[in-house]
Amino acid sequence: MALIVQKFGGTSVGSAERIAHVARKVQAACQAGHQVVVVVSAMSGETDRLTGLAKELNPAMPARELDVLLSTGEQVTIALLAMALEQLGQPARSYTGAQVAIRTDGAHSKARIEHIDEAALRAELDAGRVPVVAGFQGVDERGNITTLGRGGSDTTAVALAAALRADECQIYTDVDGVYTTDPRVEPNARRLDKITFEEMLEMASLGSKVLQIRAVEFAGKYAVPLRVLSTFEDGPGTLITLEDDDLMEAPVISGIAFNRDEAQITVAGVPDHPGIASLILGPVGEANIEVDMIVQNVGANDLTDFTFTVHHRDYQRALGVVRAVAKELNAAEVRGSDSIVKVSVVGVGMRSHAGVASRMFAALARDGINIRMISTSEIKISVVIEDKYLELAVRNLHREFGLEGEPTEETV
Amino acid sequence: MALIVQKFGGTSVGSAERIAHVARKVQAACQAGHQVVVVVSAMSGETDRLTGLAKELNPAMPARELDVLLSTGEQVTIALLAMALEQLGQPARSYTGAQVAIRTDGAHSKARIEHIDEAALRAELDAGRVPVVAGFQGVDERGNITTLGRGGSDTTAVALAAALRADECQIYTDVDGVYTTDPRVEPNARRLDKITFEEMLEMASLGSKVLQIRAVEFAGKYAVPLRVLSTFEDGPGTLITLEDDDLMEAPVISGIAFNRDEAQITVAGVPDHPGIASLILGPVGEANIEVDMIVQNVGANDLTDFTFTVHHRDYQRALGVVRAVAKELNAAEVRGSDSIVKVSVVGVGMRSHAGVASRMFAALARDGINIRMISTSEIKISVVIEDKYLELAVRNLHREFGLEGEPTEETV
Repeated sequence: MALIVQKFGGTSVGSAERIAHVARKVQAACQAGHQVVVVVSAMSGETDRLTGLAKELNPAMPARELDVLLSTGEQVTIALLAMALEQLGQPARSYTGAQVAIRTDGAHSKARIEHIDEAALRAELDAGRVPVVAGFQGVDERGNITTLGRGGSDTTAVALAAALRADECQIYTDVDGVYTTDPRVEPNARRLDKITFEEMLEMASLGSKVLQIRAVEFAGKYAVPLRVLSTFEDGPGTLITLEDDDLMEAPVISGIAFNRDEAQITVAGVPDHPGIASLILGPVGEANIEVDMIVQNVGANDLTDFTFTVHHRDYQRALGVVRAVAKELNAAEVRGSDSIVKVSVVGVGMRSHAGVASRMFAALARDGINIRMISTSEIKISVVIEDKYLELAVRNLHREFGLEGEPTEETV
Repeated sequence: MALIVQKFGGTSVGSAERIAHVARKVQAACQAGHQVVVVVSAMSGETDRLTGLAKELNPAMPARELDVLLSTGEQVTIALLAMALEQLGQPARSYTGAQVAIRTDGAHSKARIEHIDEAALRAELDAGRVPVVAGFQGVDERGNITTLGRGGSDTTAVALAAALRADECQIYTDVDGVYTTDPRVEPNARRLDKITFEEMLEMASLGSKVLQIRAVEFAGKYAVPLRVLSTFEDGPGTLITLEDDDLMEAPVISGIAFNRDEAQITVAGVPDHPGIASLILGPVGEANIEVDMIVQNVGANDLTDFTFTVHHRDYQRALGVVRAVAKELNAAEVRGSDSIVKVSVVGVGMRSHAGVASRMFAALARDGINIRMISTSEIKISVVIEDKYLELAVRNLHREFGLEGEPTEETV
């Protein structure tokens, strides 16, 4: 008998029919002998409907009241799912965030969980009942309702799993697991049986958006085994775990991630002296523009080139900010492009295998793909290339690192 | 400066536009120098939408979960109204039943308020903020969400007014006050400036459904001045108060109430011995059929006739139950009719004026209206007549007791 936390997102509970389907899945886990705690999101569309009403009445949407409003979305779902379980003969009881209690700080709309009182949930489980908990919400020390921000239901599930020392936290979505890359780009993309938290973080932040980064970080920190699986199809999904012996035998590269949403800005010929990076990026940060990659190469003749990437939507604004700074710095030129993409290979195996970078660059060169920018971390290598080469590059790298094979063949 | 509790029902907050209108009304009261606590219901249609979802998933609708579900309706409204007030520059803060806290017993869907902690609300008022409280809901001693049943928002408002010792509890609806009778039946029906709790109870229970009976009883018990007025039109409404010197000069009759929803059943020729009433009504009660009027006349020849009224919808079922009992009792006959109505004259003035009954019966006789059944209380006389005479009887009595005149003329 295992203790499992199951989380179902908005699409999974988007109608009465789907809630009934989720109830049958939960019941099946109970009948298999497991203790189950369920976490649910608001029915899909509900948050947008409520936000629309709020905007009509107060475009500023005061944060405290917005949390009171939006938290009703999950409250509706917990009641309906508990009813659906009871209808199947499976005892269940709903819990709001306040009722659990999931205590957070007072930062409305982006609260952080500080403490979970698991006593009530433990009592429900011991009594043979399924606690159905509202995701995304909590309560601060003065009893105000708070929310954890969009996607916060994943965080709720992981936090509950950590507090209850659950054997597994299962995140049900509309995909059946984490893939080696986007199947819409590479039809041979393959579902991974296992992936480490670190790899998952690099994959997620690079655009393979299956799980909220915050939930993955949380799960990694508390060593909660996390499984991504489909609400609508049966299957083992993908298990996200700590690096273990088993994974030391894993393939060098676990997946190919990419991001089409970036634009690149280069300040060429700037004086190569200390503090130049902060002189350029300071005003960008003050303009509330987020920067992703940053690359600066070794300079020559006391001059250097400084390049960074921003989101597409901030491109023109960032260009304006940087042009003003460049003038002050007597930089030679400001160049930019928003017809670029970032492609990354990710894998913990990279640590123990030399030559991944050269294999990657060689594979791209074979098809004449020019690399404009390179950035590396311990388990990831990212390149910026022209956007027209995206599909070619992803398929190329997927094949180069043998990702299309069966997982069992890879790990043998 | 007065402390006022204002309650707005589902129709009054049925859209974003209407919520904005309510916000302006609340602000006006604040700007007039009053301290205001607001109680709101769910937006009209919301309770039915949620109930529909629940029924789809579990036709039995477990009471605990139904309360969790339905209480979201008011929670949405409090957040939206608080936002609308903030938008107008009027500081406000929403409160769920649990947050106030409105402590109830554990009887889900029909909970009774046991205690209200007014400290938080008092602090908000002292800080110049308007507390916007969710009607209809509370929390039991174990933290379970409860609801007070349909129309419970009126009760919440009165209970808050009692706890805060408010100067007035204003119930905003879609009518501009309590009328001498239904204006759709008697175009000369007139809005009453004042009415006593007792009269209001008799009016409400007899079909002039403006306020929930329970809220009126509650207000009477705690001597909370209650005012019924329109959300959509300006005006003084009707003040419901304890009987006072002022009202001793009031007209004999305050209003004419009627009820079209009843049916009458007579058991004729039953043995006239003790306990006969309970022998007949016992099985009716066991069948969960509510009985309104009960009349038994003095018998002759050891036989008597026993008559009572039930709701239309229970008529056939009640007839079946009574026929079985009548057989056991060797009653001569069971008769019934569902083409009847009940018409009542109500007024505290009746206590000090003899002859109201004979005036009423004479007025009806003049137009050939036969009285089938009579029942009286201290401040009310009800008769059952054929339904086709309803309009004629109401207009007749309205004129007979001089109700069409101006209130000022009446009280002089």
